[in-house]
Amino acid sequence: MSSNYSLSEFLDVAVEAAKIAGEAIRRGFYETKHVEHKGVVDLVTETDKACEELIFDHLKKNFPTHKFIGEETSAALGTAELTDDPTWIVDPLDGTTNFVHGFPFICVSIGLTIEKVPTVGVVYNPIIGELFTGIRGQGAFLNGNPIKASQQTALVKSLLATEVGTVRDKSTVDATTNRINSLLFKVRSLRMSGSCALNLCGIACGRIDIFYELGFGGPWDVAGGAVIVLEAGGLVFDPHGGEFDIMSKRVAASNSHLKDVFLAALKEGEGSSSS
Amino acid sequence: MSSNYSLSEFLDVAVEAAKIAGEAIRRGFYETKHVEHKGVVDLVTETDKACEELIFDHLKKNFPTHKFIGEETSAALGTAELTDDPTWIVDPLDGTTNFVHGFPFICVSIGLTIEKVPTVGVVYNPIIGELFTGIRGQGAFLNGNPIKASQQTALVKSLLATEVGTVRDKSTVDATTNRINSLLFKVRSLRMSGSCALNLCGIACGRIDIFYELGFGGPWDVAGGAVIVLEAGGLVFDPHGGEFDIMSKRVAASNSHLKDVFLAALKEGEGSSSS
Repeated sequence: MSSNYSLSEFLDVAVEAAKIAGEAIRRGFYETKHVEHKGVVDLVTETDKACEELIFDHLKKNFPTHKFIGEETSAALGTAELTDDPTWIVDPLDGTTNFVHGFPFICVSIGLTIEKVPTVGVVYNPIIGELFTGIRGQGAFLNGNPIKASQQTALVKSLLATEVGTVRDKSTVDATTNRINSLLFKVRSLRMSGSCALNLCGIACGRIDIFYELGFGGPWDVAGGAVIVLEAGGLVFDPHGGEFDIMSKRVAASNSHLKDVFLAALKEGEGSSSS
Repeated sequence: MSSNYSLSEFLDVAVEAAKIAGEAIRRGFYETKHVEHKGVVDLVTETDKACEELIFDHLKKNFPTHKFIGEETSAALGTAELTDDPTWIVDPLDGTTNFVHGFPFICVSIGLTIEKVPTVGVVYNPIIGELFTGIRGQGAFLNGNPIKASQQTALVKSLLATEVGTVRDKSTVDATTNRINSLLFKVRSLRMSGSCALNLCGIACGRIDIFYELGFGGPWDVAGGAVIVLEAGGLVFDPHGGEFDIMSKRVAASNSHLKDVFLAALKEGEGSSSS
């Protein structure tokens, strides 16, 4: 079935789905929100659930034989195993805490894996109006214009992004702030914007030089952004070293120059957290 | 002289100045930047200097008897003493690190003090197209629409913003991360966007519930935002407790409910940093 389609047709349909959901997100962003709680610092909204339905409906109508993994569906049913089949991995609303607070760093993230490889990616911020797209082997774009990761080679001049996550036990929080403490001596500055997918796109368009996050929700946070980073000439890897695993709930990304020096710096930070 | 003008005329001229500078910032944002270094992690660009001239020229042409304090002028000549005279306090480009990296949280900040009280404020992000304005006693606005600080009463549900600053000696960095460690157990999540003035405006429009920053550059970082927060029903205060001092290089802001519980939480964080 999928062989009847080109990758750019997959992208076009994914962009349509992202824009349909994005319009619903825009409306919700400016309205009073009715929030349910998953945990103390993790939120999911009516909009989140409605947007996953809108996106899945549009994708399934076009690609009925494909497989689907979504944040909301997975929260209810558990995360499906990733197979070699073409699989759409969807976060209908990345940055739900930002959404609830009206902080404008939110996005729809849609990724397609084929043989487990991120192949098509769409990340759309409907508030700021930024659409990031990527197709494996065919480049990365912001609102249709080609984008490239930064050319920064010095860690001390690099802008780092990370997130503090939602887990608040003492060992996790201590490890988080110990890592930040160690890294602050080595980078220029630190940003936390509250969206994993937008952080990946920040690497792709050179706004930030390094990003890492440990312990986020699932593959939907990274499936769309990963291919966009790679096609912009950036790197995606495991923050513990080794290859990026889309199912591992941890990710690091950088421009093409900073991976090794950053991994060494991060390892020193881990050392100080266990001392 | 100033008595011949209404406060809304002051605001109109300040908005004109911000838009003139904003246009220059927009052009620079998308071009290659020629960066000079003030320090390892503190940058100033050609745009920064050019914009201060554009803003001062426009304000002086309209208000020749007023006084002026600007970031760039002060870097060269030292910060002038704040007097009771009408005084324009200008940061031509707040978020210079973001500007250099192409991270879209940057703004022009213009504040007018009269008898040392912040009275007119303009904070303009020309990349995202957000214009925040406030006049003492006459409300706060985003792109002409009235804004209000959040109504959140629970610290644990609050979104906190802060910045790591530019100082990188061990005692400063340790104090910074100890504070963050302590606060992470008490708030929902943390944002760092790299612009003090935009953080204040985030309080004013309810995107964030609490903000603090210690050791920023000078009064130009807060003069525009302070009146916007107050007019949106928020509070501006000294993070050590006590009244906000525009010349103190430290600031905290919150909605109308969270000041006391936040100050208590911050004090606990200071305690842990000295242990």
